Amino acid sequence: MERWFEDYVPQVVYECGSTSLDAEQIIAFAQTFDPQPFHIDQALADRSVFRGLIASGWHTASVTMRLLVDNFLSEASSLGSPGIDELRWLAPVRPDQNLKVRVTVLSSRRSKSKPDRGFVRSRIETLDSKDEPVMRFIATTIVLCKVRE
Amino acid sequence: MERWFEDYVPQVVYECGSTSLDAEQIIAFAQTFDPQPFHIDQALADRSVFRGLIASGWHTASVTMRLLVDNFLSEASSLGSPGIDELRWLAPVRPDQNLKVRVTVLSSRRSKSKPDRGFVRSRIETLDSKDEPVMRFIATTIVLCKVRE
Repeated sequence: MERWFEDYVPQVVYECGSTSLDAEQIIAFAQTFDPQPFHIDQALADRSVFRGLIASGWHTASVTMRLLVDNFLSEASSLGSPGIDELRWLAPVRPDQNLKVRVTVLSSRRSKSKPDRGFVRSRIETLDSKDEPVMRFIATTIVLCKVRE
Repeated sequence: MERWFEDYVPQVVYECGSTSLDAEQIIAFAQTFDPQPFHIDQALADRSVFRGLIASGWHTASVTMRLLVDNFLSEASSLGSPGIDELRWLAPVRPDQNLKVRVTVLSSRRSKSKPDRGFVRSRIETLDSKDEPVMRFIATTIVLCKVRE
């Protein structure tokens, strides 16, 4: 779906679909990027403080990004992100757990230096099946305007 | 190398090695997690605002994590992270660009509720070959103490 800066209206909530990670995916991601015992080995994970295998927080962030690309951002207008704030990993993500992503637009402002685009600030929440957040962050995205001044 | 809470001393700088991402790795990561045109297709990327293929910011964060696991954290003591702050993607990451990671410990404090561990706050910088940061964030990590009170 095509969206532009003007379409991201503060207070609007976007439900961005759901996903899950199986044990094989969790281990494969972590072997490459985050090979801590509780991410890559079932037996070691069982004996860790987490009492079982958990996904790397960067894996949770990355699958969240996939749902944002598919359901929140628009290829027509997305110019990337200067950064994120207040990322919190609130609860462990387990294999095969349902994860859904919800976005709430917090604010938006047009760029002064480049008036063809604007900044959209949003709260991104990754939620478990009880609607409890397992991860949360504030994202800024740069988005092209439909009406260029 | 084994490290404990007591070893993470404020002001100390850790050089955490270097890495790079080739075009194939950039595209493969992005096809799974961040399939925006400028991350997955050389021709579309050439015509984008980035004028060429760039790595997903989550890919840069993930390879940075790998260097942190290998050179900063310790399997003996690392209990994960409650979150990060002020993540900034400061410059595009291109294929085959050298990336190195530097960590500066900012502060540390023992947990009051669980005195066998503490919180270490660090500035993580991912730098290009000119020592300019391409990504930066503040991480909090939970680390077991060597001396348990």
